[in-house]
Formats: sequence, structure tokens, C-alpha cells
Amino acid sequence: MRHPETATRDSQSRSGLPHSAAVMLDRLRTQRPAVHCITNTVAQNFTANFLLAAGCVPSMTLSSEEIAAFVERAQALLINLGTFDRERREATEIAVETATRGNLPWVLDPVFIDRSPARADFARQLVTRGPRAVRLNRTEFSALAGNEPTPAALAAFARDNKTVVGLSGETDLVADGARLSTIANGHLLMAKVTGMGCAASALVAACLAIEADAWRATAAALLMLGVAGELAAAQAKGPASFAIALIDTMHSLDGPTLLARARVT
Amino acid sequence: MRHPETATRDSQSRSGLPHSAAVMLDRLRTQRPAVHCITNTVAQNFTANFLLAAGCVPSMTLSSEEIAAFVERAQALLINLGTFDRERREATEIAVETATRGNLPWVLDPVFIDRSPARADFARQLVTRGPRAVRLNRTEFSALAGNEPTPAALAAFARDNKTVVGLSGETDLVADGARLSTIANGHLLMAKVTGMGCAASALVAACLAIEADAWRATAAALLMLGVAGELAAAQAKGPASFAIALIDTMHSLDGPTLLARARVT
Amino acid sequence: MRHPETATRDSQSRSGLPHSAAVMLDRLRTQRPAVHCITNTVAQNFTANFLLAAGCVPSMTLSSEEIAAFVERAQALLINLGTFDRERREATEIAVETATRGNLPWVLDPVFIDRSPARADFARQLVTRGPRAVRLNRTEFSALAGNEPTPAALAAFARDNKTVVGLSGETDLVADGARLSTIANGHLLMAKVTGMGCAASALVAACLAIEADAWRATAAALLMLGVAGELAAAQAKGPASFAIALIDTMHSLDGPTLLARARVT
Repeated sequence: MRHPETATRDSQSRSGLPHSAAVMLDRLRTQRPAVHCITNTVAQNFTANFLLAAGCVPSMTLSSEEIAAFVERAQALLINLGTFDRERREATEIAVETATRGNLPWVLDPVFIDRSPARADFARQLVTRGPRAVRLNRTEFSALAGNEPTPAALAAFARDNKTVVGLSGETDLVADGARLSTIANGHLLMAKVTGMGCAASALVAACLAIEADAWRATAAALLMLGVAGELAAAQAKGPASFAIALIDTMHSLDGPTLLARARVT
Repeated sequence: MRHPETATRDSQSRSGLPHSAAVMLDRLRTQRPAVHCITNTVAQNFTANFLLAAGCVPSMTLSSEEIAAFVERAQALLINLGTFDRERREATEIAVETATRGNLPWVLDPVFIDRSPARADFARQLVTRGPRAVRLNRTEFSALAGNEPTPAALAAFARDNKTVVGLSGETDLVADGARLSTIANGHLLMAKVTGMGCAASALVAACLAIEADAWRATAAALLMLGVAGELAAAQAKGPASFAIALIDTMHSLDGPTLLARARVT
Repeated sequence: MRHPETATRDSQSRSGLPHSAAVMLDRLRTQRPAVHCITNTVAQNFTANFLLAAGCVPSMTLSSEEIAAFVERAQALLINLGTFDRERREATEIAVETATRGNLPWVLDPVFIDRSPARADFARQLVTRGPRAVRLNRTEFSALAGNEPTPAALAAFARDNKTVVGLSGETDLVADGARLSTIANGHLLMAKVTGMGCAASALVAACLAIEADAWRATAAALLMLGVAGELAAAQAKGPASFAIALIDTMHSLDGPTLLARARVT
């Protein structure tokens, strides 16, 4: 599985994204990619359960003695900066090196870099190390790129850094140097649960494990989460029952539902 | 927001507390205070989601390189000793210094100090550093103060240490040197969920961010949690669905409900 | 409580296990054993809430300065290798030494040792230190013992290491050197929630605190969890609502339900 299938061979038009996402959802369930996550302690449990619900096999260890072994056995890697301590910096160094050597796709989630200059510096360094995608929100993009997150700025950042930008917000934007998609799915309750962005990034990593076109993989992950969020909100009484319903929904989500509900341009 | 509004200007009588709490609940939703939490890994997720449901913006980082930046940008600080490791001791040192310099209110939650002499010593040192409130249970108070938690002992401890004591139990007691309130809200299921006291302390910190009278802020936080607990228990099938319902209820809790259900003397 | 009651004095036949389990369930609720857990950050919250629901008093601290004090005050200890960092290795060393000195029963859960040679080495060392039980899955057993997990291999491993093996799977197997039980309770959703095995091991530790026959204690814990899992699955819409229902069910589980549903040979 270290060599993901070639890019989904449907139309290169943006309207093909929902179909790509449906194909990827099936692949997650049949290929069950192992996704190693360096993520913050607040989000670990939710991320692990969300990945399991999507069909993946998550792991979360950080020890510098064994993280290389875990990354070598994984099909994708998530680097989330939400807890930025010595142990995670060391682990990140080893994990990114291991991923690079093994041509393993990895995702950067520069959580809260707008709050801490040291963290922003570390994130900027990591961008130069070749993440297949960077998933973040508007404030984090501005702190990372020094620009407002306009479509043009996203495209420029993606092109300059040879990566894909997945920007979460009321409408999600996914840009590589040449293509842009907008995803209008999702629900306001997603902003009321901690670790939702972290889960989004983990799912981007999972999709990169089973899809070579990083732009399609990133858009697919954000679409899956957005649709699951809408369906979950319909059953929720508040943010905590929403988080539960989101994982339940991710577990039962299927391609036809994705296709029927996708609002992608 | 670093300079909280002057104390709620309603009656200083104890019967004014529910009204103060209703005002503070509205302020949490409109001012959305940032609350930085040094807390244990067991309680981090629940605390973050509980604060989000109350309208706040939680952060949880511990790295000694960046915690000062986070505390400087916050409106209140929680120091919870439930995981008492080197990293958290260092983080606490920096965070309390930063808070003191910026006149930021902070809360001490001396979790489980009855179990560990080293932790009790650390808690006693922290009390001398000026927490605006100390939130704990009966056993923890005894370990901290060397006394049974009688109303007189609470008042003496608060006066001697120029702080407010918020004692959780079947009936909560809130004492500064001069005033005492009792809050008879709450539900037995609250003792069956880990991190409930930690969430209480986090909400005390949030209320201190938007209310200058620390006694009123502490009582308001415990009242909000107690009322949310009662409402949640009515929907729960056991402790886990109770915890979910508690966060959902906190998210939709409003002033009239607080006023209608408050059992405060 | 440091000296658990003598072994349950019912029939030594395997059919007596459900009755033993019902007796132990009552003891958990009346004796409320304190269980100290060295476990991974992903599983801490779920484990703590699961133990609380079973009637126990969990604690989770790792600090090398205070873990001895916590273990001394506990009635059982869990060593879970799911996060294998320096801090936890140090904590494990102190905790196992303290448990040995105090004749405190402890359980080893060698999570994911198949993924990391360093972790497998550490687990093998720990087995020589006298865990009362080792709880693991098939892959972990193979990595630990170098054998397929046949009943004969489990028995040999248990005998050679003077311990009890609790093997989780579609059917659970519990072996000491002489006795073997199989437990056919449980549900597939248990594999879709992170930390389920960790919770199982924690409950084994809790049962060891109140039952001197480690084989009976281990089987009882796996039976309780399996029955709770079946009942929870009947109420669940997916893995997250399943995890919630599991804790709720554990909280209300009683002896007659255990006896009625047990599929033990």
C-alpha cells in the first residue's frame, strides 16, 4: 500500500470530485490504511475514533525510540502541532525523515500558530520538508503565509511550496497550484467541538494513503467530513451529542449519500 | 478584556447570586473569553468541549517555549494539578508569573493532593502566589488547609490567603473572608464522570475573566454547572450519556433557566 | 483491601465462572477498589470513566515523584504500554517495584508490541517481574510469546511465567497453567472503538483487587465487558454511541444479567 493507486481516472473537471470522494470512501473501507498521528493530547481520542469509523487503523505513539518503526509500517502520517513540546518536536523530526525516505504522504496541521511565534517558525520549516497537504483555518493560513486567505493566495502558496492547501471554514477551499475547489458542506456545530480540524487533517492523511492526486484526496476528505457533519447535526441536541453522531455517521457513510449531498464547485 | 467589567452591580445580598450568574452566562456568550488551561491529560478533552459549550475559547498547550504567549493572549488561567509532571511544573511556573504580571485572574484546582505529599506541597506554594479562587473537594481542602471543611474554616482559609474557596460536594460552598453562599444544585452522577471537578474549575476561571468579584464569579460557575448537571441527569441513561448531555445542556443553558432552578442561600 | 478476600469458594468447575463474576461485580460496587493506571493518553479518559462506571476509583498520574504514593494507596495496578515514552518507562519501573513490595496485583497490557521491537523487549522484561495477568490480543501474543495463540501455547506461556493470560478476540480465552475458559460474549463494534482493550485490562486489574484467584478474576472481567458490549450494541447507532452505551451499561450491569447472558465454557 506504500504505492497508492494512480490518481482516480475520472474527469479532471471539478464536478468529478464527489465521484472521486465516493471511490476513496470505498477504498478506505477495503484497504484500511494505517495512519500514524503525531497529534495533541486533547484531540487524540476523537481522532483515533474518527479514523477507526472511517475504516482506517490509527496509531499515536510519540516515543523517539519507536516512532520510526510505526511510521515505516503506516501508509500516511499526520503532523499536528496542537501540542508543541520537546517530545513531539523530536518525534516530528524522526517521523518526517522516515516518511520522506519511504515516500509516505504526510499532512501538516499548524494548529494555533497564530498564537505562538515559536510554533509558527516550526510550521514554516516543516512546509519546506514536503507535506503533501497543509490543512488549516483562515487565521492559521494568514500566520503561515503572511497573506489573507484569498483563492489567489492559496494557489500561490500551494504552487510555491509544491503542496495542496485545504482551508477549512464556512466554505472549505482546496487549492493546488492549478486547481481550486470549494466545498459548501458542513455545519456550524463543527466549530463547537474541540479536535474537529484535527480530525479533518487526519482524514486528509488517510485519503492521501489511497489516492495519488493530493488535491483530490484533500477535497475528498473535507467533503466526507462536511457531509458527515450535516447528517450528524440533524440528530444532535448540542455539541457533545453532535460529536458522537459525527463518528457514528462517518462509520455508516456511503458513496451514494456523498454524491447526493455534495455541494462542490 | 484583560480588565474585567466592574463587579455586577446588583444587590450584594446572597439572593442576588442567581441573577449575577445569569448576567455572567450572557457575558460568556458575547465576550467569549479565552481560557488557558494547564490540566491533566484525562480531563483535557472534556474540559475543552465544556468551555466551548459555555461560549469560551479554550487552549491547553504546555510547552515552556510558548505557554507565556498563550497566557498573554488569554483572559483567564486554570492551574489543575491532576497530572503533576516536570513539564507541567515548569509550565505552571511560567504561566503564573505571566498571569501575575498581566493581572490575569487564575484558579487553582489541587486535584488529589490528599494522595501525594509532593503535590500537596506544590499546591501550598501556589496558594501563596495569589490565585483568585481555589476550587476543590472536601478531602482536598483538608489536605490543603489541615482542617475539616467547615464554613468557618473555609472563611478563615479564604481570608488568610486573600482568595475565594469554592468547595464542591453534595452542597457546594463558596467563601471569601466575609461572605458565604451554599449551592444545592447538582446531581450524584457528577461524581461518576472523570474530569467533572476539572470542568468546574475551568468554568470558574472563565467567569473570573468576565466578572471582577471573585466570590460571585466562583458561585456563578458552580451554579451553572449544578443546574446543567440536573438537567442533564434527566436525559441520561448512565454516566457517559450524562457527560454528553451535560455539555449539550451547557451549550443551550440560558439565564431564565438558571434563575428558575437555582437553589442558592 | 490490600489483602483480597480468599478465592471465591464456589465450584472450581468452569461453569462456576459466571457466578464468580456476579459475586465480583457486587464486590466492585461495595469495596470500590482504587486502581492506578499507567496507560496511554488516547485511552486515559475512556478507561477512567469505564472504571468509575464499574464502581472503582481510578487514578492516572505518571510523575516519578509521586507515583509510588499513588500505587501504595491503590488496590491494583495497570501497566499499559500504549504510550511508551521515557516518563512512562520510569513510572513503570517505580510502580512495579512498589506493587511488588506491597504484594499488589498488577496487569500488563502490551499494546501494539507487534509494531515496535523496543516495546516488545520492554514487555518481555515486564513479564519476568510477576504480573498477575497479561491481557492482550492475538497479534500481541504472537509478538510476546513467539507462538501462535493456541490454547496449548497460552497454557504454556502462563505456566512458564506463573501468570494468567487473557486473550481478547471474537472468543476470549483465559488460561493459567492448568485451567482454560472461553468467553463467547462481546460484539464486533468493540473493535471499532479505541481503548476497548485498555479498558478490558483495567477491569482485569480491578477484579484482581477483589479476588485472589487471578484466573477467575481475569475471566470475570472479560465476561463483564463482553456482556456490557452486547447490551450496548443493541442501543448503538455506530461506534461512538456504542462507547457511550457501553459505559452506561457497565454502570447498571448486575449479577442476574451476567448470569443470564454468559456464554462461558
